[in-house]
Amino acid sequence: MPSYKAPLREYKFLLNDVLDIGRYSNLPTFADAPLDLIESVLEEGGKFCEGVLAPLNKAGDEHGCTRHADGSVTTPPGFKDAYDQLVAAGWPALSSDPVYGGQGLPHIVALAWNEMVSSANMAFGMYPGLSHGAYEAIHHHGSDELKQKYLPKLVTGEWTGTMNLTEPHCGTDLGMLRTKAIPQSDGTYRISGQKIFISAGEHDLASNIIHLVLARIEGAPMGTKGISLFVVPKFLVNEDGSLGARNGVVCDKIEEKMGIHGNATCVLNYDDAVGYLCGIENKGLAAMFTMMNVARLGVGLQGLSQSEVAYQNAVIYAKDRLQGRSITGAKNPNGPADPIIVHPDIRRMLMDARAFNEGARAFAFWTAIQGDLLLVSPDDEVRQKADDYMGLMTPVLKSYLTDKGYANATNCQQVYGGHGYIEEWGMSQFVRDARITQIYEGANGIQALDLVGRKLGANAGRAIFAFFKEMDEFIEANDGDADLAPFVEGLRTTKAQMQDGAMWLMQNGMSNFDNAGAASHDFLNLFGITALTYMWALQAKAALAAKKNGGASDPYYDTKLATGRYFLARMTPDAGAHLAKLKSGAEPVMALAAEAF
Amino acid sequence: MPSYKAPLREYKFLLNDVLDIGRYSNLPTFADAPLDLIESVLEEGGKFCEGVLAPLNKAGDEHGCTRHADGSVTTPPGFKDAYDQLVAAGWPALSSDPVYGGQGLPHIVALAWNEMVSSANMAFGMYPGLSHGAYEAIHHHGSDELKQKYLPKLVTGEWTGTMNLTEPHCGTDLGMLRTKAIPQSDGTYRISGQKIFISAGEHDLASNIIHLVLARIEGAPMGTKGISLFVVPKFLVNEDGSLGARNGVVCDKIEEKMGIHGNATCVLNYDDAVGYLCGIENKGLAAMFTMMNVARLGVGLQGLSQSEVAYQNAVIYAKDRLQGRSITGAKNPNGPADPIIVHPDIRRMLMDARAFNEGARAFAFWTAIQGDLLLVSPDDEVRQKADDYMGLMTPVLKSYLTDKGYANATNCQQVYGGHGYIEEWGMSQFVRDARITQIYEGANGIQALDLVGRKLGANAGRAIFAFFKEMDEFIEANDGDADLAPFVEGLRTTKAQMQDGAMWLMQNGMSNFDNAGAASHDFLNLFGITALTYMWALQAKAALAAKKNGGASDPYYDTKLATGRYFLARMTPDAGAHLAKLKSGAEPVMALAAEAF
Repeated sequence: MPSYKAPLREYKFLLNDVLDIGRYSNLPTFADAPLDLIESVLEEGGKFCEGVLAPLNKAGDEHGCTRHADGSVTTPPGFKDAYDQLVAAGWPALSSDPVYGGQGLPHIVALAWNEMVSSANMAFGMYPGLSHGAYEAIHHHGSDELKQKYLPKLVTGEWTGTMNLTEPHCGTDLGMLRTKAIPQSDGTYRISGQKIFISAGEHDLASNIIHLVLARIEGAPMGTKGISLFVVPKFLVNEDGSLGARNGVVCDKIEEKMGIHGNATCVLNYDDAVGYLCGIENKGLAAMFTMMNVARLGVGLQGLSQSEVAYQNAVIYAKDRLQGRSITGAKNPNGPADPIIVHPDIRRMLMDARAFNEGARAFAFWTAIQGDLLLVSPDDEVRQKADDYMGLMTPVLKSYLTDKGYANATNCQQVYGGHGYIEEWGMSQFVRDARITQIYEGANGIQALDLVGRKLGANAGRAIFAFFKEMDEFIEANDGDADLAPFVEGLRTTKAQMQDGAMWLMQNGMSNFDNAGAASHDFLNLFGITALTYMWALQAKAALAAKKNGGASDPYYDTKLATGRYFLARMTPDAGAHLAKLKSGAEPVMALAAEAF
Repeated sequence: MPSYKAPLREYKFLLNDVLDIGRYSNLPTFADAPLDLIESVLEEGGKFCEGVLAPLNKAGDEHGCTRHADGSVTTPPGFKDAYDQLVAAGWPALSSDPVYGGQGLPHIVALAWNEMVSSANMAFGMYPGLSHGAYEAIHHHGSDELKQKYLPKLVTGEWTGTMNLTEPHCGTDLGMLRTKAIPQSDGTYRISGQKIFISAGEHDLASNIIHLVLARIEGAPMGTKGISLFVVPKFLVNEDGSLGARNGVVCDKIEEKMGIHGNATCVLNYDDAVGYLCGIENKGLAAMFTMMNVARLGVGLQGLSQSEVAYQNAVIYAKDRLQGRSITGAKNPNGPADPIIVHPDIRRMLMDARAFNEGARAFAFWTAIQGDLLLVSPDDEVRQKADDYMGLMTPVLKSYLTDKGYANATNCQQVYGGHGYIEEWGMSQFVRDARITQIYEGANGIQALDLVGRKLGANAGRAIFAFFKEMDEFIEANDGDADLAPFVEGLRTTKAQMQDGAMWLMQNGMSNFDNAGAASHDFLNLFGITALTYMWALQAKAALAAKKNGGASDPYYDTKLATGRYFLARMTPDAGAHLAKLKSGAEPVMALAAEAF
């Protein structure tokens, strides 16, 4: 059975050496979370993920969820007990608002926790994960009454939450949605319609489920400007907080999916269900989108998480499996064969995953810090940059981390040879689970369009120019450093390629929007590679500094530097290919008439 | 439910316009197979695949195979009936030797048939597919007695066959295999041991199963030089051809796999089973490898087949699904939204698959013709080149076509958005089925090592230099052709990059074998891109000629040319990235000590 080990050393290196979060100790939330506290929280969290969640992952895949005739859903064996332990230990509350019982830690702590949970058991992690989305929606947009009533138990995890957007005929294009909300004289609404693909839509883990539902108030305009957001609890909640009558929402079906079998993906039928408006009438879509950055960053992290756990297991197998001899001479001469980790092509697959994982994790953490600064910095300029960066990086994190996460999970499965294809070994599950991350929370093509169509040009390109400037400053500041030279050169190259691509888009995307659409995927990938090159430069600088400051005997730093050099040699060359493709423009992509297909 | 349409027009274009097989009509097998006969065979075959096999594909995935307590195995509903129809119609015998009841058609006809079968129902197609491997083994290496006894019923498909190589502790490294063969006084052997991953190892489709088994004769040397090949029938065969006693081979287990659920992947226990030596004692591995080219080409074709059927269904969905509006203005203004085929990023995914499929099919057919010429040409030079090409191209076809086939199936699944992840829609199955093609019949990393370690340098590089020369001649011959210019230029570029990579390998691979190993994957991909560029140049030339020769009003040729231009613009840029990676050498790949992982 696959295993999992929390990458605690990586977290420590990132938070302390690379991001130096100590410098924020004068800010709220950070002030109460010194590094040693964060480390011990993550250490405990790691134990929980390794010891409680990871052992349930495979059984969750095998058993899946079961819907009963009455619409109730049973989660896989062990999930309920693990969820109870999760709630008892207070894990769902890590970064929530202390006003509602949260622990008020920086979001970056929750980010690390979420990575560990997803690596250990992604399908399980979606139950508390979706709750967090509902919490954010109510916390940002709900009335005080809604907050008082729903947030405390969403924070503890006694109740879970869901996000209800998709309908059978519309997913990406929510303007077409049909679910109706009829206003009642008491200020509530009655909701009717069908929602599909609702993760954690029904289950037996918590005593209530709080659905956040997009619907159209009777008489509201068609299209996206007539959509409102509602809170629809599975059980109505009495004034004293106790549970009342069952509301008119039932699980009609759970989907048979390629993966994440442990999470119930539901068709939910709403039939005159009581709902409460959350936020402003007809502004539901905007309310939903303010939460999207957090959710999408979380999905990017899921992509990384599957790459990480698949990598860890592939390493174990590659060291254990004896097959063939090294082409440079036997490395295990007394054994019947060498472990397959001696073979360069096995190394290539492992190093691809490793160099990606460490770069992607840095990218996610580096971005997430901006999310914290956006909330707590008193400095307008810092907050504006943080907001710009969150907007700009989110589609890249979501799409690049999930596409590569899937590719790496596939490569790590490949390391197992035929055994990788057998479910018994567990590698297939990582691939099948990773696959959804490219699709949900906005398919990756939508992310790419968001990047080039909205984020790139917003405020006359302020966000991306700030990012270019930051990289330029790094290059200039470190230009004479011989040890860092390969990283500075690598960054100079990919940054120039990315800038070239951005300029091409600015010059050609406006005259023909199809140029922007046709270039979007390649530009996003070019961005991802460049961002990871920058992350590797930051990590290399931190590792070199740590070596000078007493860390010379710790092999961790040399390993880090070697992994970074692999990234430069083997993963940055794709940047040039993406640039060439995007510059070829829309013509080759759109040449065929639809009938010619 | 997914559907399938046989690409008959593509076959016709390839056989007639591109490969001009009419020019071989003076050769055996081709003489009896004029183009119109081949076309009508493929048309009938297409109907069978579309109408009988494709409708069973999804049920095969859902039901899988069932092993009973006595070791017998039931295939999915409908498989037995379809198999009976297959045998009755004579499909298994297409290219088999007429001496044993085969139809003696060129192998290229069987190749097209196999692509169609795999697209329609890959798991089903493996039952007759594996038989073909057993047929080849006995036909090439068996005694006359074995041939007379086993070939006729393998040819008709009344019996099926298997290939037994892998054991629990050895797959790639067959030198470690332990299955024993004890010689008997009557000249037979008694075989004991366990084999795993035996596709079609037990089932209810045929009255007998002929296992080809690698085993070590008692007292034979250790390692690969002590392995022999045996014929081990499930039921012993009496002198008169009737079935005798049940032999000592039973299915101990069938594996739960990621895909190809309709094919029984068996653990076979051999316990004193009667076996017959096939070929020369201790030369079993060589005997097995002479069949590998054909089998590996077949697996490459399976990769293409999943890309093709996934593409066909993604096109249907993209034309049908209404979601969002074209960024250049509504294309379906009277509908609630535009079909998603208007979006450039959807086009990108479809065109990637399409341009690959048509290029890869040409590459497979162009290579397979060499397989036919090797058998029937009276010209030593032609046969030598054919043999060289088959050896050189086979690992590329196996690996490149399956890696890209999986990637394309994944992209075509992505076109479906959330519905792609739901098993009901059938796209997940194409991805899961395609996944095995990268692994079995020699994992793709092994193919890459075969290419750079054995095929590249064989006979002082004779094969690859011949390929370079052929491309150079094409470039020279077509250099002034304005219509063909983009294709000639594209080929000039990728061919130069591939030659650069080959030179680097020749200079650096011998001094440090790890350089060859570390470069192998990227060189193979560089080779694949170059070969497909050549194939597109050949197709473009043929399409331009056809337009001039009365085909100007047929939109087929302009579509073909536009698809080729997409390949040049969007798929050849990866060649440069592969070249840069391979030239970075072994150091970054091998820098970490195994303990550092």
